[in-house]
Amino acid sequence: MEQAGEQGILTPKGLTVLHLFAKVDGPVDRSIVEQAAKEAVAEGNQLVSAAILGHKADLAFMLLGKDPWSQRRFQSRIQCAGLAVSESFVSMTEVSEYAGGLSKAMRQARLYPELPPGELRAFCFYPMSKRRNPEQNWYALSYEDREQLMRQHGKSGRAFAGKILQVVTASTGLDDWEWGVTLFGRDLGDLKDCVYTMRFDEGSTHYAEFGPFYTGMVADLDHVLNELVGS
Amino acid sequence: MEQAGEQGILTPKGLTVLHLFAKVDGPVDRSIVEQAAKEAVAEGNQLVSAAILGHKADLAFMLLGKDPWSQRRFQSRIQCAGLAVSESFVSMTEVSEYAGGLSKAMRQARLYPELPPGELRAFCFYPMSKRRNPEQNWYALSYEDREQLMRQHGKSGRAFAGKILQVVTASTGLDDWEWGVTLFGRDLGDLKDCVYTMRFDEGSTHYAEFGPFYTGMVADLDHVLNELVGS
Amino acid sequence: MEQAGEQGILTPKGLTVLHLFAKVDGPVDRSIVEQAAKEAVAEGNQLVSAAILGHKADLAFMLLGKDPWSQRRFQSRIQCAGLAVSESFVSMTEVSEYAGGLSKAMRQARLYPELPPGELRAFCFYPMSKRRNPEQNWYALSYEDREQLMRQHGKSGRAFAGKILQVVTASTGLDDWEWGVTLFGRDLGDLKDCVYTMRFDEGSTHYAEFGPFYTGMVADLDHVLNELVGS
Amino acid sequence: MEQAGEQGILTPKGLTVLHLFAKVDGPVDRSIVEQAAKEAVAEGNQLVSAAILGHKADLAFMLLGKDPWSQRRFQSRIQCAGLAVSESFVSMTEVSEYAGGLSKAMRQARLYPELPPGELRAFCFYPMSKRRNPEQNWYALSYEDREQLMRQHGKSGRAFAGKILQVVTASTGLDDWEWGVTLFGRDLGDLKDCVYTMRFDEGSTHYAEFGPFYTGMVADLDHVLNELVGS
Amino acid sequence: MEQAGEQGILTPKGLTVLHLFAKVDGPVDRSIVEQAAKEAVAEGNQLVSAAILGHKADLAFMLLGKDPWSQRRFQSRIQCAGLAVSESFVSMTEVSEYAGGLSKAMRQARLYPELPPGELRAFCFYPMSKRRNPEQNWYALSYEDREQLMRQHGKSGRAFAGKILQVVTASTGLDDWEWGVTLFGRDLGDLKDCVYTMRFDEGSTHYAEFGPFYTGMVADLDHVLNELVGS
Repeated sequence: MEQAGEQGILTPKGLTVLHLFAKVDGPVDRSIVEQAAKEAVAEGNQLVSAAILGHKADLAFMLLGKDPWSQRRFQSRIQCAGLAVSESFVSMTEVSEYAGGLSKAMRQARLYPELPPGELRAFCFYPMSKRRNPEQNWYALSYEDREQLMRQHGKSGRAFAGKILQVVTASTGLDDWEWGVTLFGRDLGDLKDCVYTMRFDEGSTHYAEFGPFYTGMVADLDHVLNELVGS
Repeated sequence: MEQAGEQGILTPKGLTVLHLFAKVDGPVDRSIVEQAAKEAVAEGNQLVSAAILGHKADLAFMLLGKDPWSQRRFQSRIQCAGLAVSESFVSMTEVSEYAGGLSKAMRQARLYPELPPGELRAFCFYPMSKRRNPEQNWYALSYEDREQLMRQHGKSGRAFAGKILQVVTASTGLDDWEWGVTLFGRDLGDLKDCVYTMRFDEGSTHYAEFGPFYTGMVADLDHVLNELVGS
Repeated sequence: MEQAGEQGILTPKGLTVLHLFAKVDGPVDRSIVEQAAKEAVAEGNQLVSAAILGHKADLAFMLLGKDPWSQRRFQSRIQCAGLAVSESFVSMTEVSEYAGGLSKAMRQARLYPELPPGELRAFCFYPMSKRRNPEQNWYALSYEDREQLMRQHGKSGRAFAGKILQVVTASTGLDDWEWGVTLFGRDLGDLKDCVYTMRFDEGSTHYAEFGPFYTGMVADLDHVLNELVGS
Repeated sequence: MEQAGEQGILTPKGLTVLHLFAKVDGPVDRSIVEQAAKEAVAEGNQLVSAAILGHKADLAFMLLGKDPWSQRRFQSRIQCAGLAVSESFVSMTEVSEYAGGLSKAMRQARLYPELPPGELRAFCFYPMSKRRNPEQNWYALSYEDREQLMRQHGKSGRAFAGKILQVVTASTGLDDWEWGVTLFGRDLGDLKDCVYTMRFDEGSTHYAEFGPFYTGMVADLDHVLNELVGS
Repeated sequence: MEQAGEQGILTPKGLTVLHLFAKVDGPVDRSIVEQAAKEAVAEGNQLVSAAILGHKADLAFMLLGKDPWSQRRFQSRIQCAGLAVSESFVSMTEVSEYAGGLSKAMRQARLYPELPPGELRAFCFYPMSKRRNPEQNWYALSYEDREQLMRQHGKSGRAFAGKILQVVTASTGLDDWEWGVTLFGRDLGDLKDCVYTMRFDEGSTHYAEFGPFYTGMVADLDHVLNELVGS
């Protein structure tokens, strides 16, 4: 790994997060995928795998780690195994500017989440941005106004504590949308109820723009591949 | 089905609904498609099949059931048979928040519809969302205003009772649009008349955004495959 | 054709219209295309064929008939012959709600047009919808206002009588746009002059949204295939 | 060419213009492309060829002539040679309604331009339309207001006389945008300076909507093919 | 290179810049890519290579030079080697109209940047334009207002001096967006912090429209190919 070290650009604070959504377009070499997963974990990444419903993707990987070169290697390997990466998201964990009041433990949990949460196996991912339109311009609001809208949003989300784990990662400058939202829930109904409820929050109602939604079920890589590729 | 049980995330209330739109891009193994359909039904899903007109898809499947893993297996199998899934929709049946006055039987029919309705063989599906623009923001309306607009919408739809069966499923947090609308009618003209009429409802006129429309004819899988793939 | 009869959903009033735009992507079996055309006509459809200019399609078919299963069979056959259907439009002939004053003969001509008009061989097709924006909302206008705008539009179009035949078909609920417009003209210049002129009609200026335009030349299927596939 | 004559729809005034942008996706039979070019010219078309920079296309052809069937044949031939037409534009030369004061010679030059201009080898093409939004609606302006905005636009363009040749062709009713703009310049910097300067014209600032830009270098077909396909 | 000379259109001031984003879709002939890179540099181009994260591309090249034909040859060669160019950007270096106060050395550095900056290996590219909407119309502002907004923007950017090198190149008339922004940073977190911070600048908040973001890591071509294609 000498070259990677030489060329390395490790993430100094928090984790770099790479979501990869892939399709099974032809024969897939399972053993290469499995080996790629092992090496990604050995190189310090957390790896979540999920089966995805519908035409946008057959499966999803969420990689969290310090070294983007290691994440790029994982991508090259699964492509080499025959998976076609059809969608992706590049982001980073962060403690948001509105989270001033968080305890040190909570800040640490935002920067270094431990995934997947064992009992919450329903999965969805969507990217979002804040609007900058004439009458709905998030970036023209004062910090105080934004902070208050975010606090209301957080309160609305807390009603789903225990049922939903929400992981928001930041992507301004890194991907087409400003944030990525990864939800883990008990079942698909909880995901739906949570996002529907929060759509009435004043911040979402006026300022949120949502990208495509990817929905599925978290499982061991072995189980995901069994269902999609055959054993 | 042991693994599915272990990893399972069954839908506790109502049904998970997976619409799959597929193209015949090359040779299709009919027997695998037929076997997949049998297994999906055996695993507790209702399955509607339809031929679709035009370039977006050659055929459609609508799966309703409790187990998303079972629906994902159906998708994997038809892909494996050579069908290319070109579009899809992930949603759930629901009793909407505006349906407070419904009888228990009607609520049950919304959560557990019985499909396809034998005599209504014209088919269309389209997704929709409510607008959140400065002057047309559904989510900024009071519950009373929304409830009244939905009641007017329902009345307008009831003029088509007997000619059209409308199945609205919820997808906020699950797919790119907030609802999926599946219509079953006597003929294509009824579908057109119904949607055209409802476009003048105040709720649709100001607040509805519509996605792509998929139009075709419901038939037994056997008949659909005869017409599309040859026997 | 027994099965189609059993599963049939014939159009009770007017005609179902299927526009198919196709590309020659590889070897095409001419005889299958020719056979499909013969059968479609034998099953009661009118069939217009045209060569299309540019990347969107190489050729177009416009099918008008009573039986959507018959139109779907035509599509399956030309796909099977090697044509790739790249775009399409599903619609129906209609007597619009603003055509109250039409004579019975004119109403009949709208429901049952006879195509193609022999001498008008320049062809274009485009879909359109009426806007539902805050300040440009067609569906929020009164019937009287809409009727007046349509009358002005009709008058502006009548200046092209004899040079242009306009066939407007309805697709609300059937396809992504609300109407399809098929124009037949003496040459491409007449098509351009007609559409450009009508863009200044108040109804078009404020309320019309246009989709992609497909432009070409109507000819016998034999001639079209000679030019595109070789004899 | 008897059949084309029979089915012909020659352009009575001005020229029909077909822009074809193509990719080299696999082996290309140079001799078929060269033969197609010779026949197109022999059938009375002017033909401009250019290499294009970037992913949208590898090369461009601009055909101007009287007979759209002849242009369609050229397209069929280069497709048959292995070029994949990835983008296109169908339009016509015209004397615009704002050009009343032009001399007969200048009107003739608009209807029958002679291309390519030998010394101006930098090339770009882009389509454009005029807006029809509530506060920026070109088609709701009076003729006098439009004429004045166009005159200002023309004056701003004349600052580039000798450095830039601008060919504007009309496509309302023929293609997705209302006009196509083909620029020929001394170098890419002149193209950039010209379009950037004109973006501050009041007409462009408020009413113009621009489509994709295709940029490259005009050269003999032989030179273009040498650079792209090899000799 | 005689033909290129004959047909040449060298850039008289500053450099022409070609960004190419490419996918590894099948077997890639490394030696052709390496040879193409050597010849591009021998012909006077600077060449930056980077691995890209996610589905949009596997790797990126940024070419800066005087001769667009030489850049086109590089593109043809890497395509010939098996790389599929999936996205691109055509632009030029410039001294912007708001940079009147710059020293001669700084103006020279804008026209002739030296890339890549050795120590800044995190990479992102995105295109952008200024809005021309009714209430957010950059081109309807006075020069003084634009100059002031750009000065504020510059100040906000200077907070990242040493951490981020920003290269803005101009593309009005050359590509779909008006400017391309290439950022080089110490790590992905610096890129994110810089772009997020600048989004609150008044000019960005009201007038900027952003295209897709491409994010990755700069490295020697050899290292990039090792990670993506294998050695």
